[in-house]
This record gives sequence, C-alpha cells and structure tokens, in this order.
Amino acid sequence: MHINGQTRVFMILGDPVAQVLAPGLFNHLFAEHAVNAVLVPAQVAPRDVMAFARQALRAGNIDGLWLTIPHKTAILPLLDRVDRLGRVAEAVNAVRRNADGTLEGALFDGIGFIKSLDHFGVAMQRADALVVGVGGAGVAIAASLAERGVARLALFDLDGSRCEAIGARLRAAWPGVDVVVAESSAAAGFDLLVNASPLGLQAGDPLPFDPKQVTAGATVVDILMKDQPTALLRACAARGVKAFPGHEMMLQQAPDYLAFFGLHDVARAVAEDSSALRRMLTPR
Amino acid sequence: MHINGQTRVFMILGDPVAQVLAPGLFNHLFAEHAVNAVLVPAQVAPRDVMAFARQALRAGNIDGLWLTIPHKTAILPLLDRVDRLGRVAEAVNAVRRNADGTLEGALFDGIGFIKSLDHFGVAMQRADALVVGVGGAGVAIAASLAERGVARLALFDLDGSRCEAIGARLRAAWPGVDVVVAESSAAAGFDLLVNASPLGLQAGDPLPFDPKQVTAGATVVDILMKDQPTALLRACAARGVKAFPGHEMMLQQAPDYLAFFGLHDVARAVAEDSSALRRMLTPR
Repeated sequence: MHINGQTRVFMILGDPVAQVLAPGLFNHLFAEHAVNAVLVPAQVAPRDVMAFARQALRAGNIDGLWLTIPHKTAILPLLDRVDRLGRVAEAVNAVRRNADGTLEGALFDGIGFIKSLDHFGVAMQRADALVVGVGGAGVAIAASLAERGVARLALFDLDGSRCEAIGARLRAAWPGVDVVVAESSAAAGFDLLVNASPLGLQAGDPLPFDPKQVTAGATVVDILMKDQPTALLRACAARGVKAFPGHEMMLQQAPDYLAFFGLHDVARAVAEDSSALRRMLTPR
Repeated sequence: MHINGQTRVFMILGDPVAQVLAPGLFNHLFAEHAVNAVLVPAQVAPRDVMAFARQALRAGNIDGLWLTIPHKTAILPLLDRVDRLGRVAEAVNAVRRNADGTLEGALFDGIGFIKSLDHFGVAMQRADALVVGVGGAGVAIAASLAERGVARLALFDLDGSRCEAIGARLRAAWPGVDVVVAESSAAAGFDLLVNASPLGLQAGDPLPFDPKQVTAGATVVDILMKDQPTALLRACAARGVKAFPGHEMMLQQAPDYLAFFGLHDVARAVAEDSSALRRMLTPR
C-alpha cells in the first residue's frame, strides 16, 4: 500500500474506533487490487459527528464514510438519500458523495446477514424467525429478513417500547410479513434464531435464549464477533443445534461496500473469491 | 504499513493536493520505524479549510495536520499558539493538538532551508543574501536567514507592496539585520541567491535572475522541485556557479515535523540517518 497525493480517502467514524476491523480488511483489498485508496479510522464524539461528516465529505478526495457505533443513526439528517433498508432501520453503514454533490447513505448489515445465511445454505423464505436484540444490527437483520420474505418475524428486546416501535416500522414497510413483538426470548417453534443482543459480551451474561428449547432442525446465528466461539455457539454445539458465528456476515457485505463506493471491479473480484477476506476474518 | 482501528491519523490539506510528496515520505518512515500512524491527503477548498481543520482536530485519533498551498496562512486564526518564524511569516506548515486541547502551529520551510545549506556547507552568518519571490516559501526562508544572522537580506518580488510589508515585518523581528527591498533581481554582490519565485514552473519562463551577474564564489539555491535540474540550475552549472536544488530543504525538515508531532525517536533516527529519505527525494 503506497499512499500519495492522488490517494482517495475513506474514513470510518466511531467512538470508540480502536476495535474496528474494516481498515485492515479494506486496505488489504485496496492493496491487493491496486486501488489507490485508503480507509482510515476517525474517533469522533457523538456531538461532533454531523459537523465532522459534513466537512470531511466536502474534501475533494474524501469519497465516503463508514459509520459505526454510535453514529449509524445520528448521521441521517445530513443525507439527501437513504436506501429502503436504511430508512426502515433508521441507520446507515456508509455514506458517499455522489457526482452531483448529494450525500447518499445505505445499510449493509442486514444484507451481509442474509448473504451469510445463503452462504451456509439456510432457507429463509416463509421461515419463522426470532431476532433477540433490536439495536442497530438487530433492526438491520430484521428488516433484511422481512425483505427476504420470512413468514413470521418475532422481535424480542429488553426495551419493550423500542421493540414495539420497530415492529410497527417493519409492519408498515413489509405488510406481508407477520411481525410480532415477543414477550420473552422463548426459543421453541422458530426455524431461525438470531442473537443480535449484547448478551455474551460480558463474562457471566445469561444466554440470549435457551438452546434446549430450540426446535430440531432450526438454525442459530450469534452475530457477536468477540471471543469465538461464543457461549451461545458452544451451548448449541453441545446440544447438536446448527449454529453459525457472525464473522461471515461481515465478510459477505464487503462487496456491497465496494460497489456502493463505485469500486465495481474489486467488488466483483471479492464476491467471486473471498478467500483473502476469509483468512483475515475467520477466528483461529 | 498496516492500518487498523488504533492507527493515529495525520492529514495534509492542500488544494490541489495530488502533487504532495509528504504522504509518500512520512508513511515510509512510519512503516520503517513501526509507528502505527498514517498521513493521508485531503483536498480542501480555501473556503472550507477553517471548518475542516477545526472538525478534524476534534477527532480523538487525528493528531495533527500538515498545511500546504494555499492553506499555510489561512489556518492562523484557528491556532492558540504559533512559533516565532510562523508569526513573522504569517504561515505554518503544521498544526498539532496539544494534550490540553490547544492548537499549536509551526513553520518548518525556513528551518529546512537553513539545514540544507548547513548540509551543503554554505556559510550564512554575516552573508549578503537575496531572496527572489516572497510567497509563502520565500518569506519562510527570509525569516530563517534573518534568524540565522545574515548581515543583509534583500527581498525582491513583482508584488512590491507585499514585499515592503514583509520587509517591515522582518525588520521589526530582527532589528540587527539590514533588510532591504530590492528594485530588481540584479544578482551582483550577493553571497547567497535564492529563487523562491514560481519562475521556472512554466516552460518559457525567464530566469529569476541572471547567472552571468552572480559574484564568483556565491551560492545559488532554486527551491522549485519540478523538472530537475531546473533551467536556473542548468544555467548556473553552465557558468560554473555553485547551485543547489530544493529537495534537500524538504528532506532536512522531516525530523522537525516528526518531533513537532511528538515522534521523537523517529525524528532522531531520521536526523542521524536520512539515507532512506534521500533515496526517495533525490531526483534521478
């Protein structure tokens, strides 16, 4: 990777930002495909994110921003256009400056999740799905599952009123899907169960749901990236429940980011051969 | 060079910015010395530079900015502190955020020039010097020559009133130096002659002064970095006049930037062994 005056610059805004994996991944891809671009981290406080993003995107060679926690929603008022998933989830992962100067945002978390299930061969259409935790990632996943055409989508979150509000947004956007707000994370009867809650980040956390209750043949996904395999994945493995980790979701959305930023050749190459990304992301 | 979430970020602001050499140089040094930092270009329009710099320097991991044309002077109102050379020249090359949150600027162009003459073994104290062109670099060089203790400092610029104003600032700061505003760039009688004007950037430009008039034993420096050797350097060589190119000036100021940004170990290492930088900067 050789950065010079002609390098196109992308930034990933987070607070904190030290934990982000995207710079390592995308800079590797830029170098591998001889794209003169770089993705650098920027630790931006919530009160600064609008002004920072506005100014950064006025720079001629800063072509776009990645947004991570806690900025995925806060950035929305700055944007001229937002894709449908981003509008429903009220969150974006990325913002670009279009040729006409307008700012456009898109949400890829849910797309990455769907593609990861496709990769694992898990059927979603007409499925009964449970999403535990409707923070940023959970809403993105729920919206993408609705778009993919699950039959029933149950949401559970300790914040019941947030869960109700998100349920209402999903119902409005996809009236054909039976969106329900669950009163508990009781696992029985679902074909697909997703942990999108923080349960598992802290030692001693309870499991987000009980693997013993999971219906035979169902699929579990734990999107937590820390300390693989997670307690939930280990508990599922111990009971013979099919369960997948979250890193594939990140890997699968890489081509979408690249295409969104106009790097179509690299996007295509990565979609066709993700082995380099897989080596970088797969837990050892 | 491996950029991750912990990488400290520096930006060089210019308009245009595609021509800047600093990212190539400093990123090479960061990689060589295992400093997890990166310098990326940002093409920022003059009307945006204050707001861009203010926001960028509020990011927790953006530790400083390099300023290049046309931003070296425009940034001054943002700064809490400016070093003496920067105040006289009304320009800075770099801005850092101090631990207490204050913004501090410094000017290195002139320091690099002085160090380059030291490197070439050219005496400056009590010299008669002519600086042609009092744009940003010319003023920086003139101020540093005054600080170094030249006896007489003649300034020439096509913009006579700017030249007078700068002469007055230099006289006020260094009353012991005989600062004169020359009516022409007549070269006779000087020990040291510096082209800091743009003459030589365009094909067909006249020479900034006539090498035939240069006093025997005098030294000429042409700070233009484009198309080496410049027409002036070639004309001097043809007449046996000792003449040096400008790249050494850039090389010599690298340790000052590094030290200014707190990277003292790398600054020391580069000051002791500049061979890597020299290979990158020396015209082939």
